[in-house]
Amino acid sequence: LKKYTVNLKNRSYPIYVKPDIYKELPQLLSEYNSSQRWVIISQHKIMELFGYKLEKKLKENNFDCFNITLPNGETAKSIKEYNRAIEQMIDFGCDRKSIVIALGGGVVGDVSGFIASTFMRGIKYFQVPTTLLSMVDSSIGGKTGINTSKGKNLIGTIYQPKAVFIDQNFLKTLPKDEVVSGLGEIIKYGIVLDFKFFNKVRNWIKDLSNFPFEEAIEICCKLKSEIISKDEMDNGIRAVLNFGHTIGHALELKYGFNKLKHGEAVAYGMISASYISFRLKKISHEQYKLIFKTIRLLPLPTLDKLDVNEILTFIKRDKKYIKGKINFVTLKNIGSAAITKNIQNKLIMDSIKIL
Amino acid sequence: LKKYTVNLKNRSYPIYVKPDIYKELPQLLSEYNSSQRWVIISQHKIMELFGYKLEKKLKENNFDCFNITLPNGETAKSIKEYNRAIEQMIDFGCDRKSIVIALGGGVVGDVSGFIASTFMRGIKYFQVPTTLLSMVDSSIGGKTGINTSKGKNLIGTIYQPKAVFIDQNFLKTLPKDEVVSGLGEIIKYGIVLDFKFFNKVRNWIKDLSNFPFEEAIEICCKLKSEIISKDEMDNGIRAVLNFGHTIGHALELKYGFNKLKHGEAVAYGMISASYISFRLKKISHEQYKLIFKTIRLLPLPTLDKLDVNEILTFIKRDKKYIKGKINFVTLKNIGSAAITKNIQNKLIMDSIKIL
Repeated sequence: LKKYTVNLKNRSYPIYVKPDIYKELPQLLSEYNSSQRWVIISQHKIMELFGYKLEKKLKENNFDCFNITLPNGETAKSIKEYNRAIEQMIDFGCDRKSIVIALGGGVVGDVSGFIASTFMRGIKYFQVPTTLLSMVDSSIGGKTGINTSKGKNLIGTIYQPKAVFIDQNFLKTLPKDEVVSGLGEIIKYGIVLDFKFFNKVRNWIKDLSNFPFEEAIEICCKLKSEIISKDEMDNGIRAVLNFGHTIGHALELKYGFNKLKHGEAVAYGMISASYISFRLKKISHEQYKLIFKTIRLLPLPTLDKLDVNEILTFIKRDKKYIKGKINFVTLKNIGSAAITKNIQNKLIMDSIKIL
Repeated sequence: LKKYTVNLKNRSYPIYVKPDIYKELPQLLSEYNSSQRWVIISQHKIMELFGYKLEKKLKENNFDCFNITLPNGETAKSIKEYNRAIEQMIDFGCDRKSIVIALGGGVVGDVSGFIASTFMRGIKYFQVPTTLLSMVDSSIGGKTGINTSKGKNLIGTIYQPKAVFIDQNFLKTLPKDEVVSGLGEIIKYGIVLDFKFFNKVRNWIKDLSNFPFEEAIEICCKLKSEIISKDEMDNGIRAVLNFGHTIGHALELKYGFNKLKHGEAVAYGMISASYISFRLKKISHEQYKLIFKTIRLLPLPTLDKLDVNEILTFIKRDKKYIKGKINFVTLKNIGSAAITKNIQNKLIMDSIKIL
């Protein structure tokens, strides 16, 4: 068992990493059980794989447990599905003492966190991530969100879970594109925060079949918990974790979330952001090439011919697009990043053309 | 100018009380203006009375200001209207630096606060209450909420404004039932927190045409800011402010929000809650009678014959109905209240019959 802590005073919480930890949840959660309702929020496939087993175990241990299944993909993040889940919780007899268990990937975590933060003005919740991406990134830090027709995550809160339980054995059932998506975010931690880790990952991904997921997850959890402890509300250093996300989000909007996974889009976005950093003379051409080659080792889906102007209109819808200007995460070095304001559209367009 | 402070460390904020203060808002808000977007969220009638004037003044002072009008009544608190307002803000080009001004009564304050707490994971907002009830109660303390088809305020957050600006001159345009509704909540502060204030209010309402609103508002703001400073998250003392609300909410659901205003329903609810306190031997018969007579001085709408069982089913939908038991605010004295658990249904039914 590995344990990391997000330090936020009275909202501090632990991240536990251990294979098969989901089987121990009845014991680990027992201190929170005072015969109130529990709701596992998940998706059908995940319920079939682990969720029904978990629910059964919890019930056997006197947890008054229900489940809500969200649809697959980004549909789950609609305001309609959010409303449906809230009403289902009322039907289950949930109240202010009820507790949510978010069992799934980034989508489930985002929606479940938003539900927990707004149900009867906020109830407790736990994150049990099932994808590589959610284990290394989205389950930690309390960012919640749903979509509107106008864009992604435009509605949301920052609302911390009471704990995160990471079970690497969940990865055994993960489709390949989900693994690649998670690797995109893992590389990101190296590029923006830790050059040593970047070098490790660079070697590891040369032989994907032997990738040491346990070690990678542990390092990412450590790095992310440190960042959140410093800047929970995303007003400073936390922003560097958005490296590659501006162009990444635009690519997601362009290709749709089925064609391109979040971490895959971020991988492409990091190539562009590194190129911009090089053009602004913040990193050398060698550094840019090293990042480019590393990311290109990932088996990313190929992108159709890009309409650069179209991508730019998507970028302008981004939350980070403030007062008509984009705050862009650039590199100072491999292992160190910062915000640059007023990036010119021309340079952004150039950086998209190279993809 | 009177100023009270809600003390919540880095989320502390002032409550300003001054006639015609809304005309000074461009000056008072100038420190927050850095050429980002401002959105006044209000309702048509209030925009006509004060809103367009305020928007014009703000624009003249270089505020980039827009407005959103919500429908009248509880319709404004639907998830559909919430979604519409969010999308309108995107259309206006709002971003994470945009600021909301909630100009209106309780409904506007609840929805605007919820919008501010969830738009792009939370933006700043100010409360400018226009009804007596919102001046003395709902604009202070950060409770936000919208309704679902399953009940009132089932979705919401606790999210504090940056300041509250109370302009007593708004009251001049207020319909009589709105004034009575506010008086219900004013009496509540006396009953649960301050016997001296109760005695003052008891005398004042004998001559409603000369009711000293300024003084009453100031005392309520002081009392409420003290309570919120002690228990922002509503886990303890803040609950006494729910006195009369359990049966009050049920009456609102039964009669609809047009027939019975919130404070009027709470006034009836306080009679029942005082009766329960008397039957549980927590207060004397004389104390109960004194409260009864005081509330009965208000020109409340008469209630049709009540179906007690129907009211009880509405009570069971309440947020305070936890694990099948109701947490009920009872009196220890006039001026002092506490939570009593496990009130028997029979006693609740008796207390409704006397209305």
